[in-house]
Amino acid sequence: MKVFDYLLPKPVTVIPQPGALRITPAFTVGLKGAPGKRTCAGVSRFLARLAGRTGLSFLNHKPLHEPLPETCSFVISNRRQGKLALGEDESYRLEIGPKQAVLQAETDLGVLRGLETILQLLTADQDGPFFPAVRITDQPRFPWRGLLIDCARHFQPVEVIKRNLDGMAAVKLNVLHWHLTDDQGFRVESKVFPRLHQEGAAGAYYTQEQIREVINYADLRGIRVVPEFDLPGHTSSWVLGYPELASAPGPHHPEIGFGVKDTLLNPAREETYTFLAAFFQEMAALFPDEYIHIGGDENNGRQWLANPEIQAFMRAHGLPDTHALQTYFNRRLLAILTRLQKKMVGWDEILAAALPTSTVVIQAWRSKERLWQAAKMGYRGILSHGYYLDLMQPAAFHYQNDPLAPAEGAPADELTPEQQQLVLGGEAAMWTEFISPETIDARLWPRAAAIAERLWSPPAHCTPEHLDRRLARVSLHLEELGLTHEKNYPMMLRRLCGQWAIEPLQTLVDLCEPVKNYERAIQCPDATIYSPLTRVVDAAPTEAKAARRFHQLVRRYLSTLEQDPTVEASNTQAGENESLWREIKAQLTVWHKNHTALEPIIKSAPLLHEIRSLSAALARIAGLGLDILALWAKQQNNEPLTLDPTFFQQLKQALAAAAKPRGQVELVVVPAIAELVETLWQKLNAGPGRN
Amino acid sequence: MKVFDYLLPKPVTVIPQPGALRITPAFTVGLKGAPGKRTCAGVSRFLARLAGRTGLSFLNHKPLHEPLPETCSFVISNRRQGKLALGEDESYRLEIGPKQAVLQAETDLGVLRGLETILQLLTADQDGPFFPAVRITDQPRFPWRGLLIDCARHFQPVEVIKRNLDGMAAVKLNVLHWHLTDDQGFRVESKVFPRLHQEGAAGAYYTQEQIREVINYADLRGIRVVPEFDLPGHTSSWVLGYPELASAPGPHHPEIGFGVKDTLLNPAREETYTFLAAFFQEMAALFPDEYIHIGGDENNGRQWLANPEIQAFMRAHGLPDTHALQTYFNRRLLAILTRLQKKMVGWDEILAAALPTSTVVIQAWRSKERLWQAAKMGYRGILSHGYYLDLMQPAAFHYQNDPLAPAEGAPADELTPEQQQLVLGGEAAMWTEFISPETIDARLWPRAAAIAERLWSPPAHCTPEHLDRRLARVSLHLEELGLTHEKNYPMMLRRLCGQWAIEPLQTLVDLCEPVKNYERAIQCPDATIYSPLTRVVDAAPTEAKAARRFHQLVRRYLSTLEQDPTVEASNTQAGENESLWREIKAQLTVWHKNHTALEPIIKSAPLLHEIRSLSAALARIAGLGLDILALWAKQQNNEPLTLDPTFFQQLKQALAAAAKPRGQVELVVVPAIAELVETLWQKLNAGPGRN
Repeated sequence: MKVFDYLLPKPVTVIPQPGALRITPAFTVGLKGAPGKRTCAGVSRFLARLAGRTGLSFLNHKPLHEPLPETCSFVISNRRQGKLALGEDESYRLEIGPKQAVLQAETDLGVLRGLETILQLLTADQDGPFFPAVRITDQPRFPWRGLLIDCARHFQPVEVIKRNLDGMAAVKLNVLHWHLTDDQGFRVESKVFPRLHQEGAAGAYYTQEQIREVINYADLRGIRVVPEFDLPGHTSSWVLGYPELASAPGPHHPEIGFGVKDTLLNPAREETYTFLAAFFQEMAALFPDEYIHIGGDENNGRQWLANPEIQAFMRAHGLPDTHALQTYFNRRLLAILTRLQKKMVGWDEILAAALPTSTVVIQAWRSKERLWQAAKMGYRGILSHGYYLDLMQPAAFHYQNDPLAPAEGAPADELTPEQQQLVLGGEAAMWTEFISPETIDARLWPRAAAIAERLWSPPAHCTPEHLDRRLARVSLHLEELGLTHEKNYPMMLRRLCGQWAIEPLQTLVDLCEPVKNYERAIQCPDATIYSPLTRVVDAAPTEAKAARRFHQLVRRYLSTLEQDPTVEASNTQAGENESLWREIKAQLTVWHKNHTALEPIIKSAPLLHEIRSLSAALARIAGLGLDILALWAKQQNNEPLTLDPTFFQQLKQALAAAAKPRGQVELVVVPAIAELVETLWQKLNAGPGRN
Repeated sequence: MKVFDYLLPKPVTVIPQPGALRITPAFTVGLKGAPGKRTCAGVSRFLARLAGRTGLSFLNHKPLHEPLPETCSFVISNRRQGKLALGEDESYRLEIGPKQAVLQAETDLGVLRGLETILQLLTADQDGPFFPAVRITDQPRFPWRGLLIDCARHFQPVEVIKRNLDGMAAVKLNVLHWHLTDDQGFRVESKVFPRLHQEGAAGAYYTQEQIREVINYADLRGIRVVPEFDLPGHTSSWVLGYPELASAPGPHHPEIGFGVKDTLLNPAREETYTFLAAFFQEMAALFPDEYIHIGGDENNGRQWLANPEIQAFMRAHGLPDTHALQTYFNRRLLAILTRLQKKMVGWDEILAAALPTSTVVIQAWRSKERLWQAAKMGYRGILSHGYYLDLMQPAAFHYQNDPLAPAEGAPADELTPEQQQLVLGGEAAMWTEFISPETIDARLWPRAAAIAERLWSPPAHCTPEHLDRRLARVSLHLEELGLTHEKNYPMMLRRLCGQWAIEPLQTLVDLCEPVKNYERAIQCPDATIYSPLTRVVDAAPTEAKAARRFHQLVRRYLSTLEQDPTVEASNTQAGENESLWREIKAQLTVWHKNHTALEPIIKSAPLLHEIRSLSAALARIAGLGLDILALWAKQQNNEPLTLDPTFFQQLKQALAAAAKPRGQVELVVVPAIAELVETLWQKLNAGPGRN
């Protein structure tokens, strides 16, 4: 693979040229056009990252302004300063030649995107660092490319948000969807209604100065900040300080558990709208983006149905059910937002013909159909279904999820070109019921980068080949930005092991992944915001690469056995077969012995007790795998064999036992071992040594 | 070693008792006396850390208040809320029995100290986690136990300060000396003189809200915050916005280099004092501590001597030299601070009989003698000489440095008991010319913990045995607090290697340390605040444990050779000798081969070019070491030997070449290899196989 193949997201066109632009301490950046603060700050960060990676101390650590010397190494021009708003021009052209690189864009947003591209092109040989010559033109496919971070379930301090904004910028995401309020916490300071954060956050909230700091930080990186205030459900934290907003009588208690709660704001009282009008006036001034997200999801309607005042209100207004009442509530909300010159985003539950299509954006989380349905009704929409990173699916799963490709089983080309235009893009989402500031980066990166490419690059470019390798390279670059997705893994293993060396634990956990979808919540119904997130499941990789590598090894080995036996095996083939067999045997031997090394650690580490039987199960199936390999070797040597069918029964049972999750982690290497042993067992039974 | 032996800093008395207090989800903390916010927040953090380490979800995630149930697992009482001020009571008593633990303290500061002690006692067996029964009484030896962090040379964001405050609290340090202004940056927002931070910080400063946030964070951890505004030198950043303060005409430029600069405030203009009075009035309100540090160091006097106005002023006031002028300046400063009810701390240059002893504290950085001299003159003082962590000395070096023990060569018992009382303690210092937010933790921890013990524990307890093992355990606990001292090492190696596996680089860098004392500044005179801090020298461990372990191995092996040959070697002895020999050979073999693995990585990684010859040198001396081992084995087998004296010359040359630093790192394993090969060479030449 060439360096161009690693670009992520892939640009629209990449035309390699001969030669390279060498980088020396004399490297200078010159600015033309209308640079402004985003370009200047962006170039300063670019130079710092370039210095950090190359080790060079640049003579000019700041960009030059016009008139530029001819010797300028990198000329950057933008015609105007962009408006940080939906649909703003983010396109750029990058031409790198042996003497100069030129980055041209309509706006400074395009400049920022291009700077990330050129940084990904940085490479080196023994003569030093260089950018390869190339011509690139690029622009995003979708204008709304977001990441939701839930700061309510587990508060995520400012530095977590900042480093993830850097990560987003690195892969050209452009919307931070900041989920600021939910049952478990009201995370933004309100000066108008201070009991919101005082009573609703247990001290963990963003001050307005911090909010402004984050918005400014995001702006400098070309990222919009869309705040979400989830209404009318998910509001347990609101009613602690303002019980008059509630649909049910108090006393109200801080919500520390998870799942859908009953709390709903009272839509039947005019005072609720007075409150929300004043609240949104304050927030509209604090958050400059044109869009405000009002949530709208998971309203179970119970408190509304149980409240006679609300029932009377529904009858009086001819509202037949709670969905109609929520639509009424949303229309009132929309009126408030419209007066504040804001547009509304909401989860797909709010979809209803009674809302105007011009000012409402639907965020589809329950299915892609909801997005398409919205488009057919004339609503603009963004896709989050299939992009929930907290569900622990592999990068490839998210990557193949295209907002405009028909969902499985649905007829193709369902949307007209006009309807397709209404699909603005999508958002990766990180819900934090089981995510702490320590673990969030590893659950976001590098998988969010796969979604970023899906939303930026032409769909024909989004081919899954080499995705893992490309993500691995991006992952390295993300680390430079302070993201902890790689480095917190051994740290968490060290805490689990206390003073013991982590290697035996790592050998096991390298093969484990957290259970997927909502399985952890189902298995841990009593979890609260105080439940420790320092367990094996929290440390375990989202994608266990070691298990995947072993599976590839097994398949390569088994494929060597499928070669036509009538063709005389070449030495090479035989050699490959032999060396793969040995590699597999060595790996199984390590796993077989590992439990003995891990057991004393488990004994002294309470956090490991829950995976003791998982460790034993790995040892057992690896041992049985070795037994099969030994039988196979015997057969290959034409030694007499006795194949005991009960042995295979044991094996099946051991595999089934090993596949069972413990402590919400599963041993994802089991299918690879199963494929190996089951295939060999069949061959043994069919083979020449069978007695 | 028992868990009690790991306590750091060591308490005054520790009396182990039989039994243990088991920790279960029912574990409850109850508060008695006058808990207040420090105790409550401290207990919440304690419970979160206890949950994090044990994996338990406590039924009570908050402390109970009086009346307490009898079943309370851990009863904490403090008689009053402490004043966060010099000399406040920090003592505590901790009694752990099988049914209950009791922590008693006069103040909540004592409670915080005791909570750190009990967390260090947490241990576990296969029945789960527990605290061993014990009786501990404890109090600090010195009331001033500080850490200086220089945020001027390289700005350290709020989260860096916060996580290090957590680290300080964990080892009972109680003063953050916040070096906020220097030539390279003015890092605090001034609303009275906004051009100070606007012109003097290149955007990198703390807002007043952030300052308050840090002070509150420190207060909750029982840590005073003493700000330093370094005057009259180290002020290049002040005069950018306010050139009228300068002693020399402008134009003034941002200072990006290091070393002692000429800029001095003008002490001859009354307006300077008017400015400083208004400035300190603002800062005195911002920083609640009784002490303000006014710097006072490294005034080279040049600008004063070159300024006729200042010269005239000195003559008019009978000030014979620049030191007298600085004392005049300091007296004026002191008057300003005194009006603001603040006391003054200054570097030992300010020591002069003309300052009152009651309101001035001397910080000795140039020598311990300066501290003692101050004490003899009646000044209170704190020691920083010997505690500069940026000079890359080992923990043991700092640990042996006692403020009250005579300096080397000085007569014992020089200070009277009254003078000893004037020694308030000391401060570790982290100057950041070559330290980034990414590297600071690794340069602070765990070495700062050794200084913390020196300043807290009775001197008789400060014995160097097991210091490394004790620091290693503390280091694990420090990681829980978010400190990056361990986890950033592999991350930095990954950046250095790009997409290559880091193992060969780590094999080399594990044996390297940065050059010590001021050697890096001397070797890099052109370094600026923009010079990348991503090099091998920045990643290299402060104490290369792998090199130390190898040296111990070599010494153990060589000592087996010294056993009396007339006594018949037991099998055990022979076996030990053989296994050590093999271990050494295996290690040298790894090092000998490492360069071959590392060379292709170096070729493609410009940042590694500077250590190419270091890598080659390691391979070479390891190879020669293997040659000597082979000769030695021959001699042991009584095979004929030819010892070529030029071989030893080559060896000496190779060792000398390998000992030479490259890229400001040195291969600290060289002395161990030298000791091995030189000893064996001598024995070969004296031995029976000599031909």
